Amino acid sequence: MFIKNTWYVCAWDHEVPHEGMFARTITGIPVLLYRDSTGAIVALEDRCCHRGAPLSVGRREGDCVRCLYHGLKFDSSGQCVEAPAQDRIPPQARVRKFPVVERHRWVWIWMGDPGRADPALVPDTQWLDHPDWRSQDGYIHYDVNYLLICDNLLDFSHLPFVHPGTLGGSADYAAARPQVERIEGGVRITRWAIDTEAPAFAKAVKTWPGKVDRWNIYNFTIPAVLLMDSGMAPTGTGAREGTRVDAAEFRGCQAITPETANSTHYFFAHPHNFAIDQPEVTASIHQAVVTAFDEDRDIITAQQRSLALGPDFKMVPFAMDAALSQFRWVVQQRLQQEAAEEALQAAQAGAQPVHIVRPAPQTT
Amino acid sequence: MFIKNTWYVCAWDHEVPHEGMFARTITGIPVLLYRDSTGAIVALEDRCCHRGAPLSVGRREGDCVRCLYHGLKFDSSGQCVEAPAQDRIPPQARVRKFPVVERHRWVWIWMGDPGRADPALVPDTQWLDHPDWRSQDGYIHYDVNYLLICDNLLDFSHLPFVHPGTLGGSADYAAARPQVERIEGGVRITRWAIDTEAPAFAKAVKTWPGKVDRWNIYNFTIPAVLLMDSGMAPTGTGAREGTRVDAAEFRGCQAITPETANSTHYFFAHPHNFAIDQPEVTASIHQAVVTAFDEDRDIITAQQRSLALGPDFKMVPFAMDAALSQFRWVVQQRLQQEAAEEALQAAQAGAQPVHIVRPAPQTT
Amino acid sequence: MFIKNTWYVCAWDHEVPHEGMFARTITGIPVLLYRDSTGAIVALEDRCCHRGAPLSVGRREGDCVRCLYHGLKFDSSGQCVEAPAQDRIPPQARVRKFPVVERHRWVWIWMGDPGRADPALVPDTQWLDHPDWRSQDGYIHYDVNYLLICDNLLDFSHLPFVHPGTLGGSADYAAARPQVERIEGGVRITRWAIDTEAPAFAKAVKTWPGKVDRWNIYNFTIPAVLLMDSGMAPTGTGAREGTRVDAAEFRGCQAITPETANSTHYFFAHPHNFAIDQPEVTASIHQAVVTAFDEDRDIITAQQRSLALGPDFKMVPFAMDAALSQFRWVVQQRLQQEAAEEALQAAQAGAQPVHIVRPAPQTT
Repeated sequence: MFIKNTWYVCAWDHEVPHEGMFARTITGIPVLLYRDSTGAIVALEDRCCHRGAPLSVGRREGDCVRCLYHGLKFDSSGQCVEAPAQDRIPPQARVRKFPVVERHRWVWIWMGDPGRADPALVPDTQWLDHPDWRSQDGYIHYDVNYLLICDNLLDFSHLPFVHPGTLGGSADYAAARPQVERIEGGVRITRWAIDTEAPAFAKAVKTWPGKVDRWNIYNFTIPAVLLMDSGMAPTGTGAREGTRVDAAEFRGCQAITPETANSTHYFFAHPHNFAIDQPEVTASIHQAVVTAFDEDRDIITAQQRSLALGPDFKMVPFAMDAALSQFRWVVQQRLQQEAAEEALQAAQAGAQPVHIVRPAPQTT
Repeated sequence: MFIKNTWYVCAWDHEVPHEGMFARTITGIPVLLYRDSTGAIVALEDRCCHRGAPLSVGRREGDCVRCLYHGLKFDSSGQCVEAPAQDRIPPQARVRKFPVVERHRWVWIWMGDPGRADPALVPDTQWLDHPDWRSQDGYIHYDVNYLLICDNLLDFSHLPFVHPGTLGGSADYAAARPQVERIEGGVRITRWAIDTEAPAFAKAVKTWPGKVDRWNIYNFTIPAVLLMDSGMAPTGTGAREGTRVDAAEFRGCQAITPETANSTHYFFAHPHNFAIDQPEVTASIHQAVVTAFDEDRDIITAQQRSLALGPDFKMVPFAMDAALSQFRWVVQQRLQQEAAEEALQAAQAGAQPVHIVRPAPQTT
Repeated sequence: MFIKNTWYVCAWDHEVPHEGMFARTITGIPVLLYRDSTGAIVALEDRCCHRGAPLSVGRREGDCVRCLYHGLKFDSSGQCVEAPAQDRIPPQARVRKFPVVERHRWVWIWMGDPGRADPALVPDTQWLDHPDWRSQDGYIHYDVNYLLICDNLLDFSHLPFVHPGTLGGSADYAAARPQVERIEGGVRITRWAIDTEAPAFAKAVKTWPGKVDRWNIYNFTIPAVLLMDSGMAPTGTGAREGTRVDAAEFRGCQAITPETANSTHYFFAHPHNFAIDQPEVTASIHQAVVTAFDEDRDIITAQQRSLALGPDFKMVPFAMDAALSQFRWVVQQRLQQEAAEEALQAAQAGAQPVHIVRPAPQTT
């Protein structure tokens, strides 16, 4: 149901404690997160291999975790190292350990084959802790499938309609047709609105003499990560040609992580590189984004209820769906590829014992 | 699951606004209701054809509605007439429009084939706005399948047991066997209790010297509409023979409309033709009916819970089930007829391409 | 899904009223309980045979019950004896009557074949009302399948981990390997911890000079009844060899009764035979047990949520699972046996009509 071999954001770095533990379900699997004595993050399946109790209601013992149902103790590799009334612990008594990368304030987790978890594949979110940029940490929870949120983010023509008082701007913003390109693992979207009204959230923290040129240029890649260069500059100053004079620039970072088939984690921040010594500016931008994302959640949750009533409902495609259609196709391709790989592995695993067990037929 | 080609009550007239919009789910389909500039009621599917967002959280623009997700605009025929960044709108970009009839305070909707929506088929509820009759508007919501409510209304022997303090009267009322006749699309029930106690709700607004003759004569027809002549007159004054002297007469109008498989809308009023210049009499009657219908809801909801626990539970039929059994049979017949018609249409639709594609067999 | 031919605890005796009625769902079947004029408990299916309304929202009429939907009256054998507007009541108009035994404060019910309901099979819980013992009545409700609670009670190695402040004692208690024996319909578990710390709940009501020998010896039998001899005595005084000097002795009685597939009734008491004239001692012991059982419910409910997330989760067995594995096997055997008996009865019932209806083949 979910792509496995990819990096998912599972937490803000400050959510994972040095003492104690933190639990969050990622792609339907309960995950336990904590920091060992070196500060490194440990991610284990949050389900004791014995009877399934969550380890997160257990107890830290140094770098280990003890399940507080029957007292099994697991080290940070997930291996059970102690069981009451039992000297020898079978090696299969272990919980899954998930590869984790902590980088630029986000904690990324790999729910698939650990052997393929290449840290070099983690997307670059340097603006989250770059000294020239400022932002606040955002998180909201959704009770919908994550793809409905992806759809939303892949078509910014909704901005003037869903977010008139925050991110929206005027209706001509929706009328501007964005450029959509396929990139590795996703799509790149470039939308320019020339000589347009600045959106309310930007006007609240910056003044321009008149209208602006506005851009939203972002990559949206698997599993569901949006990294955006956006902003506004006075119209006619050549922003589209690459000159950014008196501009308000943002580097939005958003990660949509499935919790279950019907619920989703949404991590976000909206770094800006102006007025970075004015915390009230950062707070104002953040609050506008939070308000807007709550507006998104309202309409998407209503959409979800409406779709649930009509399982046979057929969506009519529009031109504005170019990016979301391409991204959904990329997701589908990746899921099919993983399914094919798993089928191949299962066939190979099944074939081998047969080969070992059966003696070669004697023909003479 | 539900009969399609029939008129369902979907609202009281005052619920549908001139400005703004009103949303209600009918037979599992979300419906948007509003009045155009002529005051005529428009009923559209409340689910944008694009991505399924409810139009009812959108915006009226004259006689049109704009979806406030991506800004699509629909006219009152359901046709999409505007989409951001798109000049040509495909004709299939439309939402369903449902035939509607507004008559005698109720708004009726046709969820099936619009070509068969004959306004002449709307039942007559003239007492809801007749100058000689008075009533208040009633609505309650149920979390049960609508047929359990039909069952309840098709057997008034429950009155002394469920409604002893309001509609009930004495136990002899239940003991009187009603006459049940098949009529077009339903049943007609005639129940007389002679020389009986008047029910509490009637005693509260009218006094008689002694006992009364009481009648409940009603048609219960598809989809689930109850239209009743009921009342009480002093016993021995010949009410059963057609003379109504010193009578309290009522013309109950009730419509049970499925919301989903497990929830139901219930519209009702209980017009009376005496003391019509005394609003407190109308209020007293209405309140008694509301109290009684809440009693019905309590027992039917308990029944629903009990039935849900035992999906294999077999009901034992009793003599008092004559009317409800006949009505359930009528519903079943109508559903089978509609299923057969749809199968025939599908076969004809499917047969045509075959006829076109395949060359005629050559016999020589 | 549940064993049928066995005695389930369905209530504490004081829960079943002389006037009025009491309703509780047992193994998915709604049950109505009341006392007739002799004080004997009547247990009927709490679902009117007519339209399924719960009789428990009806009315007692002497030893009978009247359904307050359509007024059907049932006697204490479950037979319908009165129906409005109907002289002859068909004999099949009846609700199930369940065999009941009231003994030592508990009410036991038999949900299977009444002909096999032998009162001699009711387990002995004499300590619940024996003059030499004292306890308070306990009941808690669980939203989990009953077998997860059985698992919990079949492995007391969880005591130091789940109940450190009440029943727990020190970790060496978990390290002591219990003896597990198969007995008729279940298992017998004997766990001794020698020279150990007394648990907090016992220290709160009794003092010993030093460490104690502690025992928990209990039968856990179908359907899910735990009867336990437990206690502590000063270490070295020979408790294990049968001498009980200065001991705190308890006779825990616990019954786990499925309500539905996902919810459970838990009846319990923890009788003690010392300080029986001090109600505060009884109250202290009871409160400790209630606190501990709430701790169990917390961890088991968390376990249930965790298991629900992963339907394919495979438990890794540990040595401590010996008793629970054996009990689960006993349950499985009994369910298979009942299924086989039912299949046989169905085949026999089915074979007869065939024999009657079909003429013998004519061979000439």
